[in-house]
Amino acid sequence: MKFIHTADWHLGKLVHGVYMTENQREVLEQFVQVVAEEQPDAVVIAGDLYDRSVPPTDAVELLDEILFKINVELNTPIVSIAGNHDSAERLSFGSSWYKHSQFYLTGKLTNTFNPIQINGVNFYLVPYAEPGVVRQILDDDSIHSHHDAMKALIGKMEETLNPNEPNVLVGHAFVLGGKTSDSERILSVGGSGCVGAELFEPFSYTALGHLHSPDAINHQRVKYSGSLLKYSFSEAKQNKSISIIEMDDIGQFKHRYRSLTPTHDMRELEGHLDELLDPGFYEKQRVHDYLKISLLDEGALIDPINKLRQVYPNVLHLERKIDMTDMKKKQSYNAMQGDKKTEIELFEEFYHEMTSAEFTDDKKAVMAEVIEKVLKEEGAK
Amino acid sequence: MKFIHTADWHLGKLVHGVYMTENQREVLEQFVQVVAEEQPDAVVIAGDLYDRSVPPTDAVELLDEILFKINVELNTPIVSIAGNHDSAERLSFGSSWYKHSQFYLTGKLTNTFNPIQINGVNFYLVPYAEPGVVRQILDDDSIHSHHDAMKALIGKMEETLNPNEPNVLVGHAFVLGGKTSDSERILSVGGSGCVGAELFEPFSYTALGHLHSPDAINHQRVKYSGSLLKYSFSEAKQNKSISIIEMDDIGQFKHRYRSLTPTHDMRELEGHLDELLDPGFYEKQRVHDYLKISLLDEGALIDPINKLRQVYPNVLHLERKIDMTDMKKKQSYNAMQGDKKTEIELFEEFYHEMTSAEFTDDKKAVMAEVIEKVLKEEGAK
Repeated sequence: MKFIHTADWHLGKLVHGVYMTENQREVLEQFVQVVAEEQPDAVVIAGDLYDRSVPPTDAVELLDEILFKINVELNTPIVSIAGNHDSAERLSFGSSWYKHSQFYLTGKLTNTFNPIQINGVNFYLVPYAEPGVVRQILDDDSIHSHHDAMKALIGKMEETLNPNEPNVLVGHAFVLGGKTSDSERILSVGGSGCVGAELFEPFSYTALGHLHSPDAINHQRVKYSGSLLKYSFSEAKQNKSISIIEMDDIGQFKHRYRSLTPTHDMRELEGHLDELLDPGFYEKQRVHDYLKISLLDEGALIDPINKLRQVYPNVLHLERKIDMTDMKKKQSYNAMQGDKKTEIELFEEFYHEMTSAEFTDDKKAVMAEVIEKVLKEEGAK
Repeated sequence: MKFIHTADWHLGKLVHGVYMTENQREVLEQFVQVVAEEQPDAVVIAGDLYDRSVPPTDAVELLDEILFKINVELNTPIVSIAGNHDSAERLSFGSSWYKHSQFYLTGKLTNTFNPIQINGVNFYLVPYAEPGVVRQILDDDSIHSHHDAMKALIGKMEETLNPNEPNVLVGHAFVLGGKTSDSERILSVGGSGCVGAELFEPFSYTALGHLHSPDAINHQRVKYSGSLLKYSFSEAKQNKSISIIEMDDIGQFKHRYRSLTPTHDMRELEGHLDELLDPGFYEKQRVHDYLKISLLDEGALIDPINKLRQVYPNVLHLERKIDMTDMKKKQSYNAMQGDKKTEIELFEEFYHEMTSAEFTDDKKAVMAEVIEKVLKEEGAK
């Protein structure tokens, strides 16, 4: 039995004010292509299909289109849950109909824990839910954290789970833990948001969503697929992929990654303005990528964002990287000097920072006149 | 072939700040009961399933539940379109899957005009669309009004429509017109929002949504079903119903109404406060109805809304009905008097309006002191 594990599509996501929908469409079309090639028995999407409870309409249309291609056109069963970014109720609409064509979508958690059976594998679906909701559904007042909630839910599943069959849990949670070998201890669960990986012991494989890196947890059988795309610059160095799992009838499996390649990558670029605007440099660059640019220049720069966007149209974020050690030294040096500069001297410094032109005597004369006039007016008040 | 025609459910509607969802649930459960009794071959819902593009989640859950009961549990085909209150894109999500079980939902208008065929009847679905959208879809620059748009769309349908078969158009529009006899002329279409009823001539029956009264148009073959419930006090006197149509194989049909009865009706009540609060009166009333109350009392009343709500918990709107002729007379009489009243005289009048107690000399003395103090302070400024 082969299935693909993906999660965190976040359709309708805005990154630094730019909608990712076109990028998402492109990568999802690649995804459909991978499904066509791999011909899996199921596609598992572990939550956060949308980025928010009321996504923009083009995200709604995109999801509809992609899921239809996978489920109906490629005749591939889909197993999916709501994540914390989805509206459980809105996502659930129509799910009773989808089952007809083996599209299993669980938006809201309920108190039935029957797995979806596909080609001999049992999929247990645990959509994201707040601990208070789980407390109410299970009528169990001892539930206070996400860890408690998951533990109680898995306890319910274990009542009927057959450990000799391949069992897969599909969940959306912040799972901490590592290799469950004897030499290592499970991280103690501090925040109520975290769930210990050891809870998933009864399952052959746990297909997680929530954390965006496929390396977020180092565990043999509990895994994140990672998000569809890079959704923040903190993810710029992560490899984005989907997971292909081939599982035998006792739940042992082979796991491999396949990557999807967006036309526009998201990455960071660092350098001096002149250097970045030099054709010798940028002609070797993928200039249409989504970029965070850190400028190393000191002193003032005139309108750097527009200059950069002429070369790199998708600069999403621009920052200056200024050596604060150096600045502090200068400041303290200036402070030590103790001498107060005249207005014309201050302006001259400013002029040199802002332009590369010479501050000629003519210019100095004009400015001196202006300053004199202003000072006179101030004195008159 | 028997079908039920309904429209304008407006799930998630707020009326005077009160959500109608519970009332809607109750009436829709009756509707499901009617479907079970009548066993129609189809249920037609002519738009405005929701009241707004992003309805509250309990409205989403209600629609899902009711449509599932009708379509899957009662195995009844559903034919439905988006109205101007629905979001075409959001409503469309999943519609490709619904077709599997003969739930035909058209949210967005497209340029394919093939009817849905159910038991020998052809249903042509025309979801609400702005004229500009139709102009673009048909690539026809002559479309400027809703009338133009509907005319062009029907023109497209006529290219393949077989007039010897029973053809039903399902639309959501503001249709004007009357009996299409020779002695009457079609109302000239003034506003671009209106569509002439004569356009629907090619159809055996036109199932409309948009106007909330089943009597909105007086036409043999072009009909509104009216809304599910009364949604404003201007509808208080309308009869709400659904239409049952039994059509033969050449498109001739019998039409009858069935009414649905909400526990809480919406109606207007008029009277003097004392009268409305008299058990002899209200014990004969359905006090839990949604009410607009018009009070006929003159003069000030103390907190009438809370007094009324103790008897009539669902007062949504309270107004005073004051004979303006009388008031004008009084005002002009006062104006003619020309005498300026003292502060204490003005207060005495106010006191008598607000209470039924006597304005004793003690009270007068206290008030006089206050007035004197205030006047003194004003003088000091």
